[in-house]
Amino acid sequence: MTLDHPRKQRLAAFIRRVWDEGDASAADEYLADSYVIRHDPGDPWDGMTLDRAGFRDRVERSRAAFPDQRFDIQELFADGDSVVMSWLWAATHQGDLPGFPASGKTIRMSGATVYGFDAEDRLTGHWQITDRLGVYQQLQRNMLAG
Amino acid sequence: MTLDHPRKQRLAAFIRRVWDEGDASAADEYLADSYVIRHDPGDPWDGMTLDRAGFRDRVERSRAAFPDQRFDIQELFADGDSVVMSWLWAATHQGDLPGFPASGKTIRMSGATVYGFDAEDRLTGHWQITDRLGVYQQLQRNMLAG
Repeated sequence: MTLDHPRKQRLAAFIRRVWDEGDASAADEYLADSYVIRHDPGDPWDGMTLDRAGFRDRVERSRAAFPDQRFDIQELFADGDSVVMSWLWAATHQGDLPGFPASGKTIRMSGATVYGFDAEDRLTGHWQITDRLGVYQQLQRNMLAG
Repeated sequence: MTLDHPRKQRLAAFIRRVWDEGDASAADEYLADSYVIRHDPGDPWDGMTLDRAGFRDRVERSRAAFPDQRFDIQELFADGDSVVMSWLWAATHQGDLPGFPASGKTIRMSGATVYGFDAEDRLTGHWQITDRLGVYQQLQRNMLAG
């Protein structure tokens, strides 16, 4: 990936600190006063508007089953108010999920996310697609093998 | 969507003519000599490099079960050699799919696609994520109801 735009640098730092390293309170440095999850099929917060406390809660709950998760940013695209990120993701399934007890196996995922920015380069929300069928198939395979 | 870039205009026309209206031979006007499907989980052509005949075949086979399909482009983002498209999609399930006979019901999908362009503004390939779990759930629900 090429960080040829200040918003790309900010987004890459946000992903690393908040989502990879799990420093939920660092999100305060990157977020606007409210963060809108405009479209994110399968995400429990799809359609919701979060304040900063709500966002921290989302980070902590989302990471609970996958505490060593890492995003591998493929490319970043800046245009207008947005930066789009294509990504791969991998994590060890260390915590229980509904229907899928912790397996200790690596889970892989890919996705694409459109992040919105305000005039002060703060994140205003996202529109996201993830390959959740791929994740579901891996969880199921691990459960049957376990 | 805002067509504020020549490549956005070209991509929107390609989607309408080839994928919505089903004019597979029109793809020849938009494609480079080879088209690489870099990443597209669940797509039968994932990882393949297609020549123009191969691409026309892909269009015809992909559209067979969904001949009235329509892409509703949400946003387009141009940066570097790429244009990213976020999209919704709807179609009537009119042809049989493996395990899912034609239901006559509307299927909805969303996705995000990174399209690559060459110096002559021809399409060189894509990197795509679709919400295939959402599609699978709709197909299954329709079959159980049918």
